[in-house]
Amino acid sequence: MARPRKNDHLKQELLETGMRLLIENGYHGTGIKQILDAVNVPKGSFYNFFTSKEQFVSEIITYYSTTISEEFSCFLKTFKNESAIITFWLCFQEKVNASESCACLIGAMASEIAQSSELCRRTIIDVEAAWLATLTLLLNSAQHQGDVRNDFKADELASSFYNHWQGSLLEFQVSNNSEIILHRLATFVRMLLTEQGQTKITSYSHYFKDNLHV
Amino acid sequence: MARPRKNDHLKQELLETGMRLLIENGYHGTGIKQILDAVNVPKGSFYNFFTSKEQFVSEIITYYSTTISEEFSCFLKTFKNESAIITFWLCFQEKVNASESCACLIGAMASEIAQSSELCRRTIIDVEAAWLATLTLLLNSAQHQGDVRNDFKADELASSFYNHWQGSLLEFQVSNNSEIILHRLATFVRMLLTEQGQTKITSYSHYFKDNLHV
Repeated sequence: MARPRKNDHLKQELLETGMRLLIENGYHGTGIKQILDAVNVPKGSFYNFFTSKEQFVSEIITYYSTTISEEFSCFLKTFKNESAIITFWLCFQEKVNASESCACLIGAMASEIAQSSELCRRTIIDVEAAWLATLTLLLNSAQHQGDVRNDFKADELASSFYNHWQGSLLEFQVSNNSEIILHRLATFVRMLLTEQGQTKITSYSHYFKDNLHV
Repeated sequence: MARPRKNDHLKQELLETGMRLLIENGYHGTGIKQILDAVNVPKGSFYNFFTSKEQFVSEIITYYSTTISEEFSCFLKTFKNESAIITFWLCFQEKVNASESCACLIGAMASEIAQSSELCRRTIIDVEAAWLATLTLLLNSAQHQGDVRNDFKADELASSFYNHWQGSLLEFQVSNNSEIILHRLATFVRMLLTEQGQTKITSYSHYFKDNLHV
């Protein structure tokens, strides 16, 4: 495999530092100068890669989403022999437990700049659509396996789950209690389960933290 | 009733203008100077009322919440003869339809500054606790009336509903589709209904937009 060029490294460093600072301080609280100082590069180098702060942030949103998707794909492979609802839950449990920070860049940017930056809004739409497609697939399989109620379409349940997730991340920001996230998501998942699904989840309870005990 | 003093008017003007600008531009995107220019007062006047930007924003969060609570109390009085689940839903439908903007200052500040401002974080905890108490009371009554499932505690359902609401407001910020908010909340409420609750909601369907038809 060809070695990454120095430029690729620098671009990735800018994206990663930008991502960290955006999660910590938000869009308006993060200046380009702050990022350049942290990475120790001159202004000109930044504009070799990005045309504007807005375009930089749009690339960071995509980069952030790709990183999480790769992590999620890895969990999906690990649990691929489980039934869909078990896979669904184990992936989220792993995701929350593996996260250094429970803040979500996509939620933060949706709140702060989706209404003022058309470019970032469209990027968020794209990355969320990919997320929702994965969630829909899993929930649809769980419905076919008889573990999840089928009086709602899978994409409807996926969107509701995703919104629940975003709201629970906000609750964490305020409460500083990271356990709240899995607890709230578990409440939602329990609402989706059929009797068969509840039995299945109970029989897998050794895999779970306290959250999904029914 | 005594006439409000000029100072009270000025303070309220600062709070209202600050609230509007915070919703539009977020905490870091809103400068004190911008607010002073909009209200046309000198810097000194601002510091007669508020010790810092952080304390100003904390007061705005309380002011914003009081305004919405008053509006909500008004809806509660209007629908006080209905059963709890009908009241619950009609209040939210009215709230969404009456809102000029579907953005939520509390959600935006939770996302942007709860982790960096202890004062604002504590203010958000207080105002959300008051909100959750109202939601819990309504859902608890609906459980006693047999319209909402009772395999979850009412405060658990209230928190989940609130998170769902915050997540759906974020979805609106990205989709620009205000109908999505009631649609998502309706999905969640339908998950809570017992068979009796579903029948009741159906018999009230002339009151509702398309969202809650079951």
